[in-house]
Amino acid sequence: MRNFLSIEDVPDPSGLVNKALAYKKQPFLDKALGVGKTLGMIFLNPSLRTRISTQVAARNLGMEVIVFNIDKEGWQLEFADGAVMKGDKTEHVKEAAAVLGQYFSILCIRTFPKLLDREEDYDEQVIRQFVKYAGVPVISLESATLHPLQSLADRMTISEVFTEKRKPKVVLTWAPHVKALPQAVPNSFAQWMKDWDAIDFVITHPKGYELDQQFVGTTSVIHDQDEALTGADFVYVKNWSSYQQYGKIINTDPSWMITNQKLLPTNQAKIMHCLPVRRNLVIADEVLDGPDSIVIQQAGNRVWAAQAVISELLRSNF
Amino acid sequence: MRNFLSIEDVPDPSGLVNKALAYKKQPFLDKALGVGKTLGMIFLNPSLRTRISTQVAARNLGMEVIVFNIDKEGWQLEFADGAVMKGDKTEHVKEAAAVLGQYFSILCIRTFPKLLDREEDYDEQVIRQFVKYAGVPVISLESATLHPLQSLADRMTISEVFTEKRKPKVVLTWAPHVKALPQAVPNSFAQWMKDWDAIDFVITHPKGYELDQQFVGTTSVIHDQDEALTGADFVYVKNWSSYQQYGKIINTDPSWMITNQKLLPTNQAKIMHCLPVRRNLVIADEVLDGPDSIVIQQAGNRVWAAQAVISELLRSNF
Amino acid sequence: MRNFLSIEDVPDPSGLVNKALAYKKQPFLDKALGVGKTLGMIFLNPSLRTRISTQVAARNLGMEVIVFNIDKEGWQLEFADGAVMKGDKTEHVKEAAAVLGQYFSILCIRTFPKLLDREEDYDEQVIRQFVKYAGVPVISLESATLHPLQSLADRMTISEVFTEKRKPKVVLTWAPHVKALPQAVPNSFAQWMKDWDAIDFVITHPKGYELDQQFVGTTSVIHDQDEALTGADFVYVKNWSSYQQYGKIINTDPSWMITNQKLLPTNQAKIMHCLPVRRNLVIADEVLDGPDSIVIQQAGNRVWAAQAVISELLRSNF
Repeated sequence: MRNFLSIEDVPDPSGLVNKALAYKKQPFLDKALGVGKTLGMIFLNPSLRTRISTQVAARNLGMEVIVFNIDKEGWQLEFADGAVMKGDKTEHVKEAAAVLGQYFSILCIRTFPKLLDREEDYDEQVIRQFVKYAGVPVISLESATLHPLQSLADRMTISEVFTEKRKPKVVLTWAPHVKALPQAVPNSFAQWMKDWDAIDFVITHPKGYELDQQFVGTTSVIHDQDEALTGADFVYVKNWSSYQQYGKIINTDPSWMITNQKLLPTNQAKIMHCLPVRRNLVIADEVLDGPDSIVIQQAGNRVWAAQAVISELLRSNF
Repeated sequence: MRNFLSIEDVPDPSGLVNKALAYKKQPFLDKALGVGKTLGMIFLNPSLRTRISTQVAARNLGMEVIVFNIDKEGWQLEFADGAVMKGDKTEHVKEAAAVLGQYFSILCIRTFPKLLDREEDYDEQVIRQFVKYAGVPVISLESATLHPLQSLADRMTISEVFTEKRKPKVVLTWAPHVKALPQAVPNSFAQWMKDWDAIDFVITHPKGYELDQQFVGTTSVIHDQDEALTGADFVYVKNWSSYQQYGKIINTDPSWMITNQKLLPTNQAKIMHCLPVRRNLVIADEVLDGPDSIVIQQAGNRVWAAQAVISELLRSNF
Repeated sequence: MRNFLSIEDVPDPSGLVNKALAYKKQPFLDKALGVGKTLGMIFLNPSLRTRISTQVAARNLGMEVIVFNIDKEGWQLEFADGAVMKGDKTEHVKEAAAVLGQYFSILCIRTFPKLLDREEDYDEQVIRQFVKYAGVPVISLESATLHPLQSLADRMTISEVFTEKRKPKVVLTWAPHVKALPQAVPNSFAQWMKDWDAIDFVITHPKGYELDQQFVGTTSVIHDQDEALTGADFVYVKNWSSYQQYGKIINTDPSWMITNQKLLPTNQAKIMHCLPVRRNLVIADEVLDGPDSIVIQQAGNRVWAAQAVISELLRSNF
């Protein structure tokens, strides 16, 4: 594994999940693996869970960690080839990435979509350029369109929680929100679920919220939320803005919020969300405070997912 | 000791002071105690002394330290139960605290009073909720009403400096300021001094600056500063805003500033202040630059106080 | 070596370069030298290269590192003696520096010129006061007028790259820019080059961009860039604002930009720049992307330069 930008970089997703589960049992199993190596974490927008969980993971492997909030502590980067840099941008990604590659053994970066121009966001120029110029392995801490560390933790959590022999039914459901949010989490979740032969995967959302086909593949999409939830073992709740009417909020129907009533037809489904979650807008208090919410366990698993990824990159590249 | 939010959490304050003094002599006495454990430091407002001293203390015990400035790097938290989160707050403390509890062995948090609504500030909702939901030991890095790490360092400093057999006279004196400051430092200092049988403790301030009775107890309060200072061995100088006319500046009398002249009737008192101190407004240059100021030594002792607290929490909880 | 503020603090610059080159070959040669010691990095303005390279360097020596962005995380400092602190400044450098000296074994600080009052900037009050009051060794991470860590890395890079027996010709050339930049990098580069007997050193810039004589000494200054570049082995490109018409941009002539054409009369010169560099304004893409640019190697060498300096301070002072 050279980089970790999407599931496509992962030769064996189930093996990576097993590695994460092993680290959860023994955090310091490979405590010397990263000694003398430095993980650089570059944030173009802020983060709590991703930052702290990755930091803990890298330390568990003996690595040094350096965090750099480029929006707050640094300066604006130019990404355009051939630009005459007479404006606000003080450094080109060609130098910024190459220099970071001199200082770090592995480079982690978080970027974000502007939600204005679909083509621009889905082109993933920022993270692609860092990969191109850094010269060291790159880990996505969420990019404009994907959030693979989250999805790996999600898949790990389902594997950990579901111990029956049969295939669980996993439902990704859209939920309402007041802000226009990226599609990165649902895109990535779909990408990690769709080819996983150990589960049955279904997506439900209002019409107009169809995700990019490349991530959904042949997954069955049902517009009737109640129908989709029936018999579910896991309900992954998440808002996203429209991909067709790009970045727009085209539905605020509060009946899509997840409540105990909504969950009646499920198979006492476990409730997942990547957090942060707006209570009583996306998911009701009664659900989040109830016995079937596994959102905290899921967030905790971010550490072990990140640790598995970093470990794999250390083994493959050094 | 489960948490460290006030002196009430401490079974043996003098024992804790002795532990801090021992670490000052041998910083790396317990250098393996915290290995494999992570201290999370969450700041809802900025800090220099508290942040750095606690960070050094935790490293001396072998812990990893992760600092998170939630105001700058993260997002706004909702604290109200049952809130429908349609506004600016993107995460509820129920999730934020529980997730941090997944990542950290010990959680340190700094909060602050708004100085608008006394009941709200003295209710200490923020830190109480973090304690309630984090699931791991919590250390106050200063809360709305108390600053126990400062007070422990203060008590340690008095113990360290005063070696005579008799009881020293310790005077807490109000001093003027241009801004409305919290009562956390004087509240906490009073709380740590009032039941300490090795000293005589007196408070002096202009009328209207009475502190909350729960922290002052039966301590003698004298409104004549000169009378209070007479025979003092330690003069702890600090401004605070009014508790009665909550958060207001009701006196700016410059004659309350500590000068050499003011200190003449003392027993060549040592001068203390928690810092930062505004020179020539709170304390005159001649005093801070003179031989009896121990403010730098006092600030240095923050490391050992924090180290004693973290050490105690590590021993009691893991 | 007590502090590292300029080349004047360095008894043996060539020895320090050799030390840096040795660390490049063996980063963990002295991995126990700094164990139990803490490097504090205080930024009054932001930094990428300097911060990260110094952090990596200190960790290579086993030191703890604590970064503090005083502009973002802390508060404004008062530097004037005798000030009555009734305004915005909440702490005097006398306390701030002395307290940091309690927490850190070595204090690194970055300050910057305001470019408004030459006398004020060149007086270097900020860094001088930190040295005066900190009580521990101080490293300049760039001050108002000098950037010695950069210059040490620059000199190391020339030593590393040039392996012929003869003296290389090193040319410092001014280049155009849209912002008024400090003179710290060219001042410091001149200071480190002028007395180095292993090179021939020349400066070229438009009239009106003369640097402070104390840093240039007897170095030959040529106003014809083409003439200066003839036969150059190294071309160090950098913009600076005027020292005479202090802080002003008095020339924006684009013909001073470094292009392949400009470099024809050189001895296939290696191109250096401290970065960040504005492409196609200061240096053309064709040069930066060409085979003779060593700007990334130069930036990478910042780690080893910093490591040599920290190592030297650890050996001399503890």
